Amino acid sequence: MFIALDAMGGDYAPLCNIKGAIDFVKENKNKIGVYLVGNKDILEEEIKKNNLSIEGLSIEIVHAQEVIQMDEAPSIALRKKRNSSMHIAGKLVREGRAVAFVSAGNTGAAMSVGKFIIGAAEGIERPGIAVAFPNKKGSRTVLIDVGANVDSRPRHLLYFAVMGHTYVKEILQTSNNPKVGILSIGEEEGKGNELVKDTYPLLKMTKLNFVGNAEGRDIFTGDFDVIVCDGFVGNVVLKTSESLGMIILEMIKEEVEKSLISKIGAALILPALKRFKKKADFAEYGGAPLLGTKGTCIITHGRADERAIKNALKFASQFVNHDFNRKLLDNINLLIPEELRKGKEEELVGELNGQ
Amino acid sequence: MFIALDAMGGDYAPLCNIKGAIDFVKENKNKIGVYLVGNKDILEEEIKKNNLSIEGLSIEIVHAQEVIQMDEAPSIALRKKRNSSMHIAGKLVREGRAVAFVSAGNTGAAMSVGKFIIGAAEGIERPGIAVAFPNKKGSRTVLIDVGANVDSRPRHLLYFAVMGHTYVKEILQTSNNPKVGILSIGEEEGKGNELVKDTYPLLKMTKLNFVGNAEGRDIFTGDFDVIVCDGFVGNVVLKTSESLGMIILEMIKEEVEKSLISKIGAALILPALKRFKKKADFAEYGGAPLLGTKGTCIITHGRADERAIKNALKFASQFVNHDFNRKLLDNINLLIPEELRKGKEEELVGELNGQ
Repeated sequence: MFIALDAMGGDYAPLCNIKGAIDFVKENKNKIGVYLVGNKDILEEEIKKNNLSIEGLSIEIVHAQEVIQMDEAPSIALRKKRNSSMHIAGKLVREGRAVAFVSAGNTGAAMSVGKFIIGAAEGIERPGIAVAFPNKKGSRTVLIDVGANVDSRPRHLLYFAVMGHTYVKEILQTSNNPKVGILSIGEEEGKGNELVKDTYPLLKMTKLNFVGNAEGRDIFTGDFDVIVCDGFVGNVVLKTSESLGMIILEMIKEEVEKSLISKIGAALILPALKRFKKKADFAEYGGAPLLGTKGTCIITHGRADERAIKNALKFASQFVNHDFNRKLLDNINLLIPEELRKGKEEELVGELNGQ
Repeated sequence: MFIALDAMGGDYAPLCNIKGAIDFVKENKNKIGVYLVGNKDILEEEIKKNNLSIEGLSIEIVHAQEVIQMDEAPSIALRKKRNSSMHIAGKLVREGRAVAFVSAGNTGAAMSVGKFIIGAAEGIERPGIAVAFPNKKGSRTVLIDVGANVDSRPRHLLYFAVMGHTYVKEILQTSNNPKVGILSIGEEEGKGNELVKDTYPLLKMTKLNFVGNAEGRDIFTGDFDVIVCDGFVGNVVLKTSESLGMIILEMIKEEVEKSLISKIGAALILPALKRFKKKADFAEYGGAPLLGTKGTCIITHGRADERAIKNALKFASQFVNHDFNRKLLDNINLLIPEELRKGKEEELVGELNGQ
């Protein structure tokens, strides 16, 4: 059983990717191997130069001539650079030769590889990216989708809800009956835009633990385990949150540096701040899964170091070990009423709205 | 010249509203007066009980029998409680008896009063709420719309852009040629959802200083003075940001309280933290204007104390003093090409998309 790692993707590739793979395989005692997908000459040279060795380890180099650059359009990965490490790693999953795909490279390109090269899992129309935000109750709240889709339809949000439910229950294991909400701009039923108003009655028809509308603030209150939204909104929220977190810390730092006393104070709270930063770092969790693809698809941060790469590989192996896609399919059949699964939800929305 | 203040709206109403009004009128030496709109008996009793006096001040009580509660549906203010302080304050502006409306009450209801009782200004189809976020460069970035409209169309975003431009230039005065962006999920032209893709070419046709797509993080970078978006997305961003800011401070506090040393440290940086909190408090800025209504419409925070009420009244008077609506109309005519103003933008979107 192998995970296909895009060995050339990320700010510290390929060295950190190689090291992360070695650590991962050693730790799991060769049970799950890694395909290091990338330029063979460069990878071998890097291994030699740094006195590393993959001998006796379940690690194989799979040659890929090209590399997707961080600023290249996602379409490049799909159509032009078919020999890129990312494209070839994706193909290994599509062909069933690898059980999972992990990349720290160009996020948009990795997402496209997941959606179009690897493709959707059985029973799924559109994969969605899930991000687990740390919340006030010390648990996590999963927001899905954070950017794999724009202009989503009610049907897609319905499936995101089941993906999020399955992710929380099987992988994060923070709840046995995840509380599911839909992101809106008001708590009461009937508040929101057209998409929310049309999706709400569908979610109510499922056997999910659907709680109702969630507002922006609820991403952090801990009152929800899963919040579904269109990928445009989710992506804006994700980027706003990441940015605001960093800027608040910077602003505090600036204020603190204005006096000697507060500088001393800052030095004293430094360990606490570091613990906090770790807690709040969205990248700490091994990356974000693109749920609903064949196999497993993990997209991790470009600045992933060897520890982050190892974590991403471990994270991917959890999906494999928990037979995630099997359980997702079971949950779709169990939680979504048949008439909705058959794609008749548009008619239903019409009926429910009294049209 | 009078501002109509909803004297019964807000957590500390009516006392803080009365005090704020008195301070405001004293400070501007009766140049701009205040209508205290609310229950006459209650207001007079409150003034007497607290040894206050409005004698010699340009303050008049306008009786309103009812009060809109904080949790009531906006429609209540419009249709049922026509004798509420909020509804009557709105009517004073619509009828031209007051130049501005200020409320710290139920936000949704105040917004509805602005949109439907006061109504849109000349040349405007849909008013939009603007919030000025503090940014990294020490300036502010205006996000518009943050909740007055959902499912907006390209035409609306185009007008929000001109409202934001005029707000930055005339009221905030942080730039003479405000950089305008459109909130999206990728920097390049062509990234985003349908609304963004259709609005982009229209913004390019204007004489605005249109810079292109802004991402979630750009709300805080200071690279944009104005960012336009649909009210659904804007409201989610606003609520997420407010909540995340508070939660980060709480999480830091929790971490800090884990050791005596960091507690001492925290005590030393307390003044710096307080300065920071003030800087980051969205409510510090006197409230959010609902731009594009007749007169001026300021919606301020429910927890507004007397200083916040005074600030909101001062803020409203700035719009009056700068003849905001006149300048907004001038800018619409100056910055938006005639063919777009005439409502032909839908055809144009089709043409530009090669349909």
